[in-house]
Parts: sequence; C-alpha cells; structure tokens
Amino acid sequence: MKVVIVGGVAGGASAAARIRRLDEHAQIIMIERSGYVSYANCGLPYYVGGVIKEQEELTLQTPESFWDRFRIDVRVRREVTAINPAEKTVTVRALDSGKSYMETYDKLLLAPGAKPTVPALSGVSSERVFTLRTVEDTLRIRRFVEDQKPKTAVLAGGGFIGLEMAENLAEMGVSVTIVQRPKQLLAPLDADMASFVHAEMRRHGVALRLGETVAGFRQDGDSVLTLLEGSEPLHSDMVLLAIGVTPDTHLAKEAGLKLGIRGSIAVNERMETSVPDIYAVGDAVEVTHFVTGQKALISLAGPANKQGRIAADNICGGNSHFHGSQGSSVLKLFSLTAASTGINEKTAQAAEIAYDKVVLFPASHAAYYPGARSMAMKVLYEKESLRLLGAQIVGGDGVDKRIDVLATAIRAGMTALELTEMDLAYAPPYSSAKDPVNMAGFMIEDLESEKVRQFHWNEVEDLPCDGSATLLDVRTAWEYQRGHLDGFRNIPLDDLREHLDELDRGKPVYVNCQTGLRSYLACRLLTQYGFTCAHLSGGYSFYRVVTKEQQTARSAYPCGMEKL
Amino acid sequence: MKVVIVGGVAGGASAAARIRRLDEHAQIIMIERSGYVSYANCGLPYYVGGVIKEQEELTLQTPESFWDRFRIDVRVRREVTAINPAEKTVTVRALDSGKSYMETYDKLLLAPGAKPTVPALSGVSSERVFTLRTVEDTLRIRRFVEDQKPKTAVLAGGGFIGLEMAENLAEMGVSVTIVQRPKQLLAPLDADMASFVHAEMRRHGVALRLGETVAGFRQDGDSVLTLLEGSEPLHSDMVLLAIGVTPDTHLAKEAGLKLGIRGSIAVNERMETSVPDIYAVGDAVEVTHFVTGQKALISLAGPANKQGRIAADNICGGNSHFHGSQGSSVLKLFSLTAASTGINEKTAQAAEIAYDKVVLFPASHAAYYPGARSMAMKVLYEKESLRLLGAQIVGGDGVDKRIDVLATAIRAGMTALELTEMDLAYAPPYSSAKDPVNMAGFMIEDLESEKVRQFHWNEVEDLPCDGSATLLDVRTAWEYQRGHLDGFRNIPLDDLREHLDELDRGKPVYVNCQTGLRSYLACRLLTQYGFTCAHLSGGYSFYRVVTKEQQTARSAYPCGMEKL
Repeated sequence: MKVVIVGGVAGGASAAARIRRLDEHAQIIMIERSGYVSYANCGLPYYVGGVIKEQEELTLQTPESFWDRFRIDVRVRREVTAINPAEKTVTVRALDSGKSYMETYDKLLLAPGAKPTVPALSGVSSERVFTLRTVEDTLRIRRFVEDQKPKTAVLAGGGFIGLEMAENLAEMGVSVTIVQRPKQLLAPLDADMASFVHAEMRRHGVALRLGETVAGFRQDGDSVLTLLEGSEPLHSDMVLLAIGVTPDTHLAKEAGLKLGIRGSIAVNERMETSVPDIYAVGDAVEVTHFVTGQKALISLAGPANKQGRIAADNICGGNSHFHGSQGSSVLKLFSLTAASTGINEKTAQAAEIAYDKVVLFPASHAAYYPGARSMAMKVLYEKESLRLLGAQIVGGDGVDKRIDVLATAIRAGMTALELTEMDLAYAPPYSSAKDPVNMAGFMIEDLESEKVRQFHWNEVEDLPCDGSATLLDVRTAWEYQRGHLDGFRNIPLDDLREHLDELDRGKPVYVNCQTGLRSYLACRLLTQYGFTCAHLSGGYSFYRVVTKEQQTARSAYPCGMEKL
Repeated sequence: MKVVIVGGVAGGASAAARIRRLDEHAQIIMIERSGYVSYANCGLPYYVGGVIKEQEELTLQTPESFWDRFRIDVRVRREVTAINPAEKTVTVRALDSGKSYMETYDKLLLAPGAKPTVPALSGVSSERVFTLRTVEDTLRIRRFVEDQKPKTAVLAGGGFIGLEMAENLAEMGVSVTIVQRPKQLLAPLDADMASFVHAEMRRHGVALRLGETVAGFRQDGDSVLTLLEGSEPLHSDMVLLAIGVTPDTHLAKEAGLKLGIRGSIAVNERMETSVPDIYAVGDAVEVTHFVTGQKALISLAGPANKQGRIAADNICGGNSHFHGSQGSSVLKLFSLTAASTGINEKTAQAAEIAYDKVVLFPASHAAYYPGARSMAMKVLYEKESLRLLGAQIVGGDGVDKRIDVLATAIRAGMTALELTEMDLAYAPPYSSAKDPVNMAGFMIEDLESEKVRQFHWNEVEDLPCDGSATLLDVRTAWEYQRGHLDGFRNIPLDDLREHLDELDRGKPVYVNCQTGLRSYLACRLLTQYGFTCAHLSGGYSFYRVVTKEQQTARSAYPCGMEKL
C-alpha cells in the first residue's frame, strides 16, 4: 500500500505515524508545503514572545527523525498542485526548483489545514503586515521584533491567535491595540463572559477597539497606518492579521471532492471524502458538532490529531469513527484562563435550542487555603431534557480542570442534575468539598425544581421603577455603600427576617447581592413568607463587569443612574 | 417540624443550612460536642504548619453566624448521650456543667463523623501523643509545636492526615519519621504507584518505617519512646497517632439502629437509618461503592457534604438519593500531587473483578511550553465490559485535573475506549493535543485490539534467562549505559529495522524502554516482521522507582544483577 499525505502537521503527522504503527510495510509519503513538519503549531505565539526560547523546541520532529523512526518519506517545500482521482495520482511541485512531478497513491490523505484569512484590502501585502501560520511566519515576526524593536502593534482580530500574540507582544513591552469587528473578543465566549477577558487585556495595557472595521493599511515611512471605517487611522510599527482562518481546500475543490460549509471538505465519520480512497482531516474538514448535531468548522488541534488517528485506522483496513467535536478550548491571557466547551448562548439561540443557564463565582479551592481565587462560570443546559449544552469559565487556577470535567460530562450525555452527584477529588489546595461543578448542579436543581427564580444582568434595565415591585439589595451596608443599583433598597440578608413587615407581599421582589448566593438565600426566605421573588444571576459583580467592559451592553440602570 | 442534628461539621452543617433553605419554619437544633461548628476539617494540618495563619480562617462559621443567617440553634460543647426512638427524644449533656436534658425531635439527623482510631496500647495517653480531629486538637498541637519547638516527631499512620501532618511538620524543620504497618503509604494507591510518594517523602527528609508495628509508647523525660515490634524504639519529641478513623456510632448502636460494616450506621439511598425519622450521613455511615456495588466506608468530606444535602431534602419531604461514592481523593505532598478515583488493583482483586491496566507517563502540558512535568498515571478497566474501574495519578500540575476527568468518566459509566474520543480543552500551557486521558484510552484500545501485549514490573524477574527469549532494550545507547536490566540487549529503536536479522523469530521478544512508548513502537514493528512481542508497561523508569522505593517489591533482577 502506498499512502500519500498532504500536510505534515497535527492531523497529517498523527496519521502518518499511526499508519506506520499499523502497517510496517506501507509506503508512506508526507508532502508539506512549508519547510517544517509536525511543528508546535499552538506554540508559535510563545516563540515570538520568547516564552519558548529555542527554535528547536518548536520542531521536535524533523524529516530525518520521521525517517529514522517511522520510515516516513517526508518531503518538505513540496506542494501538491493537483489531484487526479481517476488516475490516483497527485501532481507535486518542488518549491525550490519549481519542477513538478507525479506521485501515485493507493490511499490519499488530505490534511492541508486552514490558512489565515487575508481580506482583499489595500496594503495587506505591506512588509509590516504579518500573518501567523507556519514556522517561517513565526521566524519572520520574531526577526522583525528583534531587529526593529516595534513599540506599537495593531492586531486585527480577537480570536485565539490574536489574543495570544497580544499577550506575548505586550509582555515584551510593545503597546498593543486590538481591532475587532464584533463587539467582543473571543467568539467561543458569550459577550458577558468575554467581559472578564476585556478587563484583563485592558488591565495589561492592551487597547481594545471593538466594533471597529479595518478598511485597509498604508505604509507610512517606518510605520503602518491601519485605516478604520468611520474612525481615525491607527499608527503602529507593525500589524498582525489574525481575523480568522479559512479551510485550505482549493485542491479538493478542483479535484471535484464534495464540499461542506464555508468551502470545507465534506467527510463522513470514517474521515472519508466523497471520492474513494481519499480521506481528509483537520482544519480543512467539516465536522458534526457533538452538541447541536449540525455541521461546523472547528479549527482546533485536539480534533485534528484524533481525526488523523481515525483516518489512519481506516486507511489500514480498520473501522474507526469520529463522533464529532464539541469545541473544547482554553486560552491563557496574562494571569487569566478563559475556557469553553460545547455551545454558548449565541449558538444555542441560532440552533433554536430552548436552554437555561446559571452563572456562579466559585473559589478555585478552599477559601481558607492560600491562593484561592474565584472564577466566573456559566453553565448552559437544555430546558426540556436537562441535557448539558455547554460551559464557559474565566478565572485563574482550576479553570481548565472544571472545563474538562464539564466537557467530559457533556461527552457522556449527562444531565445537569447529574453534576450534583459528581464525585470529584477534594483537598484544600485543589478544590472545595462541594466542587464548583457540583455547585453548578445544585443551582440548576434548585432552578428546575422551582425553588428559586432568577433574572439576568441584561434584564435589569427593564425592572419596574414605578414602585410596583420591591428592589432589594441584601449585601452588607458597607458593600451597598461602595456601589449599588439605583432604586434598590438595602436590607442585609442577616437582618431580612426583622424587616419583612416593611415589605409589601403584594409586590414581586427582585433581589441582588454580590455574586448571587445571598440573593438566592433571600429568595428562599421570602418565598416561604409568601413573596414572589427572583434574584439577579451572578449578582452585582457580574452586572458591573459586564456593563463596564462590554461595549454591546446596554448601559442604562433601572430607575436612573447607578450610585457609585 | 423540629429537627435535631447531631454533629456540626461537613454533613451536619450542610444539612442544617439546606433544611433552612427548604423550610423557613422548621425548628433546627444542631448539637456539637466540640466548641466549633462547620470548621475547616481538611485544613487542620495546614494550621499546625502555619500555612493557614489565622485561627479564624478555620472557623468561618460560628454559632452566632448560623443563627443570624439561618436561625439554626447551634449548641456547642453539648453531647448527645442517648437516643430514644420510641419517644423521639435525645438526651443531651452540657459538657461544661455536666447537666443533662432531653430534647424532642420530629426528625433526627446523625452526623457524628469518625474518630481517630486509638489502639489499646500502653502510653497512648501520654501528653506528647496527639491525635487530630477537632479544632481543639489542632490548637493543642500548634501550641505544643510553638512552645516546645519539637525537633523530632513520629507519625504513626501513613494515610491522608498522617502525610499532610508529616509535610507540615517537615516544612517547619521537624525531623519526621512515619511508622506504618502496611508496607506502603496511602492505601488508596497501589503499592507501585505509592512508590512515587515514598520517593518524595524521603527526598524531603521524612524517614519511612514501613511494615513496622507500633507496640506502645513510653514517656522518657521530655521525649517519648515509640516502641516497635521487633525493632529498636524510636525517640521523638512528639507522636501523632493517625492510623485511621472509626465510625463514631456508639449512640446509634445503643439506640438499636441497624449497623453496617465495621460498626458503621446502615442507611438506604435516602440516607434513612433502619429507624423511622432518623437519618445519618458522613463518615459514620456505610455507603455503596459506586464501582464495586459493595458496601464500603469512605471517610471523605465530599460525599459527607452531598449526603447532608440529600438527607435535608428528604427530611423536608423531598425524594433525593445518594447513588454511592467512588472515593475520589487528592493529596498534596511537598511538590507532589497524589490522586485516585474508583478502585485500585488491590480492591479489584478482592472484589474478584477481572481487570487490566495501563501505566503511562504523560506530560502535564505541551513539552515545549515551560514548566511541563510528567506524571505517573495508572488506569484500570474491566476486561470483559471495558468499563472504567479506577485511576491513580502521581505527579505535579494537572494531576487533579486528570483524576477529576477520569472520575467523571467513571461516574458516567464510560468505557475505556471512550477516553480516546474525549474532547478536552487544549492550549500549550494546559495540556497536549492528545491529553493524557486520551493517551490512556489509545493505549487501552491498542491493548484490547491486540495490537500490543504488555508485561509488568513484577513479572520482570520471571522472564526466561536461559536464552529461550530475546530481552531487548530499545533506548539510546546513552540511556542504556546509565542503567539497564541485566540480560537485556540494547538495540535503539531507530536502529531496530537494520538489526532484525540478528534476532531469532522463533523466540518471544520482551522489550523495554524508558516509559513504555518506544517499546510499544518496537513491538508493533517486530510483530509485523513475524515476532511474538511484549513490552514492559511503564518502562524501565517505572520498574526502577517501584523496586527502589517499594519495600514489598521483589528486588531480584532477571538474569542476575541490574547494571548501574
């Protein structure tokens, strides 16, 4: 068997090694356009920032090491320019010589990845406008940074790579501005959860220009002008374009392979394309979203690697299946970790899934043990079935743990109520006896058994201010004085029982506290004294961060202005 | 409704607060023998060691705060001395006055916990022999440590509390010796995995006297002698007894409640005892082990808190169920984290479950990102069903994450093969594109599809040395020279294909490498050239640590002595 693999990173390299493990006698040729294979794709921003110091660390495998260990014939700086399925051949061009030749295959695996989206704007080819995909791109940016010592940078795009680059450049002392057309960074998060990311970026001096659209670039002496629609242009010493990626599928298209959404390659669960003996994996293929069941593009290394292994099994006569991706992701941003799994509210709404949610601020570990830090956690579940749909967490230590626990629960098809029973490992340095994941379950249980009702930060401005409802803040007097929602009366939770007679049982009560715990207790209490009560999900602190950091947030306060 | 709760920590305190949330009008009396309620049980060793600095941090809730917030009538330094189920009363003795009184109840919740096992040995009541259960015990030990400045301590017992105390005392400069009758520390781990714990303790100067039995204690001036069976006594300035805990159930016994194993209280899934209107939770009750289905005692804060909540639901007319405990636990030991969930090999063998296992040493996160550290991971699964049974992990960062992911997978009833598909969040600072949990799944998949066979460290000495088998070490020459198993011939993996003709296809091949990855690759290769091959699970490094640190390990090497 002769296998030709197009693309030598993540999915392609995984598949090559697995094919060899399964078939010692196969001829395996891996063709890679860049000069490097199996490189640390996700580490590239950290090499620019000097966190990863040696170039060798990015490229632990070489064509030579692939040959020595796996007898894989790696051909770098070769580009497959055409596929001829009828003949079972590919046309390969050697980039250095420019010469082309034919290569036959019995099985062909396409792992071309995705390329940075480069919009058709004036000036994008300026030498100070960079994109980041390959090791070569990385070396170019690092060299530029070392030689030119840029003081300012504009990053167009607020996704994973954009934000990682922003952090790395900022840590080097570069003054960074992120321009992003959507009014939030990090699309996998909902806008409210992204507010914590905005705050962290600003706290580290990164300027955010959200809701702004880049109209083009212009070289201006030693700097570059980023032209914005309807705003003054931005001057900077360099620009990084990281507005997204596009499946690199012109080959597949030209060969007549069936395409999926947004120009991706359509594959089945065996990673087979529409053409016999041609497989495809990684960022170039369309996947089934594990939660929605809809087709999706999910450009992440984890699924790519798993798909490579599955394609290899099937190429070697096995029968392995990829059951979809749920988009679990995590990102380090200065001292913050932002992570998500499954779907967010935007996706749930688009997929017309009836959902509900809880927002909480649990501590990373026992509060009495040094170093505990609270995290913001949002968990989504389907209203009818109580099936878990997704989670978003932003915080410090332990964020990645809880997102992986929730990712596993989603994968297992658990309901939200099952979170209450999860038997997780506890010791004070690691968690609390009731882990944040358990807490989310408890909250959902109380919501679903109608022990409590909640309202959300974006519903605050719609609260009645005409005296037809009681607006109650149950924090301490000290907390209340430091800032509260206008129109909200302060009765600290511990004093509430003594003041019940002052409240009108005929009026609904809307309660807030700092994070939503005490307001929940207040509602339990009030409900049992005959009041109708709802509490503010996530509390005043969530409301404050979201309305301050989120440019999309409506900023009106109920009943006038917020008291600071 | 009048509810009396016996015991004011974990399960009792959780239940009290939940009952109030569910029933604002219930009368709730919580009776606690010690002077403190809802204290940070699991934080006590860290207060002794000064990691937790303020006593107030241990006791965030007080009787007053319970009253203010929850109208729970907390009575500390009161002991329930009898239960009269026929009359629905309890007898309460005020410890300070010595006076007794009766208290009626509609519902009674027993949350008495477990007490440190104190063997009937001479000298156990010496003032320098301590146990650790309550805040009072903690204050006593801390005062002793501050006043007497002990230079040496003997810890009898190598469980959670013993090890946490050992760490805290050692960090204060006390020279610590742990005496433990079993030949390993930390029973939730198998002996081989406990070897890493032994190594860490020794590396930090803690002396281990494993397989030794304490025969008694004798005060000797300002020090105390720990008498050992068959060994010289140990001199030290203090002794801590932490040989285990015993359910504190004399009350339940005398009241005629049905008992479970080892004197525990028998309860059903609703946390009801055999007597109507009496519930029990926490360390005092018998639980169903989630994995084996057998009755078990599991003294952990997580299950206790969850049981308290469930009992409260049922006391208030609900219908909540506790579906068993899987014993997930984690422990910090100097720079090491040791964690486990489900069952270990000892338990699987005792329960006569046919299981298999994989051992691996994955990196905590992408090796090219700074700070990555490998962890030792063992995953057990049932042979026939492939159901996950348990996991043990010892290492640094990310151990607690992987144990919680595996705990969740076990809870969800996942098979080991489903680990291959788990969609976990990846970025270089947090994981690898193939997470350690995925890797365990891949290894089990290869094992179960018979792509590879393995042998284990304790089978090494049984390998044939008479030339009837080929013993092969596929590490580099440099690694081989630094230490290898005698009788094993070195052919580095990358050279293996060139040396196949030197190997006899008629003989089985046993291969080892450093951690088990290259030996797996070698076996895949050899198998396809017609050899019968098995590789050493966990590799030479696992074998070395286990045989060095584990006093139970047989120390014979195959074919003579190990070459160092």
